Amino acid sequence: MSPDNRAERLRTLVASRQPGHGLPGPFQWDEAVHQQDMNRIWRSGWLFAGLSCEVRKPGDWLRFDVDTDSVVVIRGDDGVVRGFHNVCRHRGTQVCLEDAGHAVSLVCPYHQWTYARDGSLITCRGMHDIDKAALGLSPVHVRDAEGLLFVSLADHPPDFTAAFDLMAPMARVQKLAHAKVAKHIDYEIEANWKVVWENNRECFHCNVNHPEYIKANYDHYDGDEASGAIGASIATATERSQEKWGDSPLAATHPDSGLTQFPDPERGTWFSANRTVLVPGFVTESLDGRQVAPLMGEFDDPDVGVARMRTLPNFWCHASCDHAFTTRLAPAGPRRTRARASWFVHRDAEEGKDYELEALLPFWQCTSEQDWELCRRVQRGVESSGYIPGPFSKEKEFNVDAFVRWYLSKLTDA
Amino acid sequence: MSPDNRAERLRTLVASRQPGHGLPGPFQWDEAVHQQDMNRIWRSGWLFAGLSCEVRKPGDWLRFDVDTDSVVVIRGDDGVVRGFHNVCRHRGTQVCLEDAGHAVSLVCPYHQWTYARDGSLITCRGMHDIDKAALGLSPVHVRDAEGLLFVSLADHPPDFTAAFDLMAPMARVQKLAHAKVAKHIDYEIEANWKVVWENNRECFHCNVNHPEYIKANYDHYDGDEASGAIGASIATATERSQEKWGDSPLAATHPDSGLTQFPDPERGTWFSANRTVLVPGFVTESLDGRQVAPLMGEFDDPDVGVARMRTLPNFWCHASCDHAFTTRLAPAGPRRTRARASWFVHRDAEEGKDYELEALLPFWQCTSEQDWELCRRVQRGVESSGYIPGPFSKEKEFNVDAFVRWYLSKLTDA
Amino acid sequence: MSPDNRAERLRTLVASRQPGHGLPGPFQWDEAVHQQDMNRIWRSGWLFAGLSCEVRKPGDWLRFDVDTDSVVVIRGDDGVVRGFHNVCRHRGTQVCLEDAGHAVSLVCPYHQWTYARDGSLITCRGMHDIDKAALGLSPVHVRDAEGLLFVSLADHPPDFTAAFDLMAPMARVQKLAHAKVAKHIDYEIEANWKVVWENNRECFHCNVNHPEYIKANYDHYDGDEASGAIGASIATATERSQEKWGDSPLAATHPDSGLTQFPDPERGTWFSANRTVLVPGFVTESLDGRQVAPLMGEFDDPDVGVARMRTLPNFWCHASCDHAFTTRLAPAGPRRTRARASWFVHRDAEEGKDYELEALLPFWQCTSEQDWELCRRVQRGVESSGYIPGPFSKEKEFNVDAFVRWYLSKLTDA
Repeated sequence: MSPDNRAERLRTLVASRQPGHGLPGPFQWDEAVHQQDMNRIWRSGWLFAGLSCEVRKPGDWLRFDVDTDSVVVIRGDDGVVRGFHNVCRHRGTQVCLEDAGHAVSLVCPYHQWTYARDGSLITCRGMHDIDKAALGLSPVHVRDAEGLLFVSLADHPPDFTAAFDLMAPMARVQKLAHAKVAKHIDYEIEANWKVVWENNRECFHCNVNHPEYIKANYDHYDGDEASGAIGASIATATERSQEKWGDSPLAATHPDSGLTQFPDPERGTWFSANRTVLVPGFVTESLDGRQVAPLMGEFDDPDVGVARMRTLPNFWCHASCDHAFTTRLAPAGPRRTRARASWFVHRDAEEGKDYELEALLPFWQCTSEQDWELCRRVQRGVESSGYIPGPFSKEKEFNVDAFVRWYLSKLTDA
Repeated sequence: MSPDNRAERLRTLVASRQPGHGLPGPFQWDEAVHQQDMNRIWRSGWLFAGLSCEVRKPGDWLRFDVDTDSVVVIRGDDGVVRGFHNVCRHRGTQVCLEDAGHAVSLVCPYHQWTYARDGSLITCRGMHDIDKAALGLSPVHVRDAEGLLFVSLADHPPDFTAAFDLMAPMARVQKLAHAKVAKHIDYEIEANWKVVWENNRECFHCNVNHPEYIKANYDHYDGDEASGAIGASIATATERSQEKWGDSPLAATHPDSGLTQFPDPERGTWFSANRTVLVPGFVTESLDGRQVAPLMGEFDDPDVGVARMRTLPNFWCHASCDHAFTTRLAPAGPRRTRARASWFVHRDAEEGKDYELEALLPFWQCTSEQDWELCRRVQRGVESSGYIPGPFSKEKEFNVDAFVRWYLSKLTDA
Repeated sequence: MSPDNRAERLRTLVASRQPGHGLPGPFQWDEAVHQQDMNRIWRSGWLFAGLSCEVRKPGDWLRFDVDTDSVVVIRGDDGVVRGFHNVCRHRGTQVCLEDAGHAVSLVCPYHQWTYARDGSLITCRGMHDIDKAALGLSPVHVRDAEGLLFVSLADHPPDFTAAFDLMAPMARVQKLAHAKVAKHIDYEIEANWKVVWENNRECFHCNVNHPEYIKANYDHYDGDEASGAIGASIATATERSQEKWGDSPLAATHPDSGLTQFPDPERGTWFSANRTVLVPGFVTESLDGRQVAPLMGEFDDPDVGVARMRTLPNFWCHASCDHAFTTRLAPAGPRRTRARASWFVHRDAEEGKDYELEALLPFWQCTSEQDWELCRRVQRGVESSGYIPGPFSKEKEFNVDAFVRWYLSKLTDA
């Protein structure tokens, strides 16, 4: 397709979306849309890559693939975490094949071009007349929000300051920079990445689909509750939290049932964070509400509710008193989304002694896998010629609509 | 590709077909041709979906996938069988994931939008300001020819009257509406759907490839027989049948060796039916010619030959005195065709007592699988740049040529 | 995409390659580039298909697939080896499904059209009014260079004389026409075919990646050697070989370390051959340098070094005193390359008595598989949006640059 044809086709497609309704089907499977998504969103914004504690020592690295792109994040000898395209500057070989590792230097297996931990080319055996200074690994931007690592493949990424200011205090008290990985589980969801976000942006589906999740959280009550008892309970608990924790980032900030409003497409907001109380009887997001690992971070009291953070297009996090759970997304073509689910605990906690994976994982493993199956069913449906985008609920799907508006604004942005 | 380019390309391709010869290669693998096939044929005509006895009771449903489309056929509380796109009107989720089932109502697993058995939206929890009457499951047309269920994805499907009039009497005497499924076998044939039909429309390949089939049938004798003995035998047997059964639909109607002429593209005929005698010694299509199940339908005499029905683009049926065999096709992309082979017996027949699958299945299972392998080899050959469409035999492949003419007329139809 | 768009796109892509640097990424995965590769290179030049000893007797045939094309090479009753598209002229069925076989005649399984060993149509049962003389299997050109069989899918293939003159003497002394297959191993490399050639055209990567190969050969010393001792050793050994063998094709012809210069794009040279000495202590390409099979061909002395031949786009061969090793490539789409690795020994050698596969195979099996893994890593890297083609080493990658120039000249050739 010529560029003109493609642009025209995208304009027509965008125009075909009816306000307050879902995205027309081709957004979820068309190759031209997918390339636009990659350029306008995935290669433009900030992407969560992992936690800085995953690259704790100089030479520690982790890898993050975004569709056909691959990024390596590595801590330098100066302690700074940097990111690079995982592509040798000589013949294009992928330098790191594993998920993570530790390296004195990054050596391409093909001809042993050797890059320092800061990405600079230090040796290229047998090539004498090249400008080594110009041939370091291609850098990608990195920001560290007190342990939350974000990368950007853009030449000129958007400003990160406001996102940092919002998330850093929460990450700091949780000491995410000093945590340790308890477990990664990697998924390949059979759905377009936007289907995954639309699923994430409402808890209207929780009652029936997430029996574990709704025992601990209030999200599914969006305006549903006739008696007012739930709302009163949340308000009381939030007030108590604010009295107890005052101005500290441990105070609950979300006194309502239901999800916080996110994103805010009219202001271009792609990040948000808040702290919520848990249902009485739950001190953490576990199956029975009991603590499943030692207290994390600066906590000497489990009564901290859940810190929640999310950034578009690829990150959400729930951090309780004893563990933090993150989800990192990335497309793998228009019909697949890779998701890495990660559990983090206090650095000194020992598996088998201080925590058991059988207690730590199920809450979010069940919830995640329930969602991936729902997304798979949505993907199959929206690929049908019989699919007609339906109306969103104003009470319960305002965030899905906001996500769609945010998405379309990015896609058509000049 | 722009619409103009695509239309021009299809015109050129259609024009490149030489009369009396096979379709040029791209018809069997090109994505643009496939989309045209879907629009002009698969989403325009009538598609066999199954037998009404598969949805015997109100709430019984079956599912039928056509490429990326999915249809649910369900019997309502009023006993009427209806069809719907298997896509929730809310967010597009596929409502039914299994092949078949029974449901009090069709409940979308995502947000529990609930549809009555007639497709109307009865509850959409928590959404107050929507027009429920406008949000029932999208209907597809359904026709029931005395037990043979056909659906159409078209807005304005072609008239079904003549097809009904031809097939209904045969289906009625066989009591297809009151039969039961003995077995479904699902295949994915590695060939374009047109290769499968070209295979079906001649028995020139039968002698060597279908040792089981040719023992029971005369199809493979197309004009081949020098002595005239076979022709005389068929004529005698057909005459005998007509004397015996008179005007009833049990009388053989096809007094010739070889296949009946079908389709008739110049008249736009997409359906046909006839009754043929079997080779002496065979009362049914089984390996040894002996009955393999109790008599079906209204029969009290096994001497009814074989009722044969076929409709384009996706159905053929052979019904003997004791069982009926159907094949339901659907594309799965340009290079794959799904085929469901189904065996039906008298409703009261009990497996293990009245019939054994080991005796019932082999005749058509062998014949079908032999054909699928031939189709696979054709597909591999016609994808070659060295493929040159060859001439059809006027004596033996007149129906293949007719199929190709029918196909091209549909494809280029305005 | 319209033809005009495609041509324009290819021109832009070709123009974007910087001299002395690698090919831009899309050359290794774009579907339009791949179709151009097929037309301009794979369906234009000469392709190695196998050895004539693989089709030793009349009726012996072998099959060779090139992307979606399939070729059958068969020896006729007159002893001549011919090639044909493996596609029946009737309905396009693939005639031969196996890798190789022996046939009295080639019979299409579908309707038994029967072709003589010279490709002519001899029977087409039941079709009376066709011109059999016009419906033989579509021939492809074949050349036999003293046992090396080449085919061309082109209407007018390039002249083969010079290639014959260069390779035939080497093939003759090795008696490739009278050898026997010891083993075929078939691979599917996860890389574009050009990545495989770029790997083949330098031994800069050998030191670290091919521990077996570099023990026997000098290729990896390209200009690297400071002391001059290696160069002197090669020169001495080559001189000794030339004194010993004089004008015979057994004399070493390549007195230098490193690879011979190939291809020569400015002269359009797509073939070359030379004989090299082995490292002292190695009489053949085996793990320990000891003979692994009886002497081949006309040899009564193992001291013949290694005869090396290569032709673009799909062949290389290393023939030592006791065995010959060939690699035959073919694309399988833009991201995959099929490779057949074959080992040949003296016709009378018996496995288990005269040679053991465990000793014969590892040298080239290890080397090949090491390369395929490198190619896989290159493919993954060059698919990244972060890939920037890097500079080739003038000392060590001159042949890779020559290959790229040859490739681009073919692609843009009118």
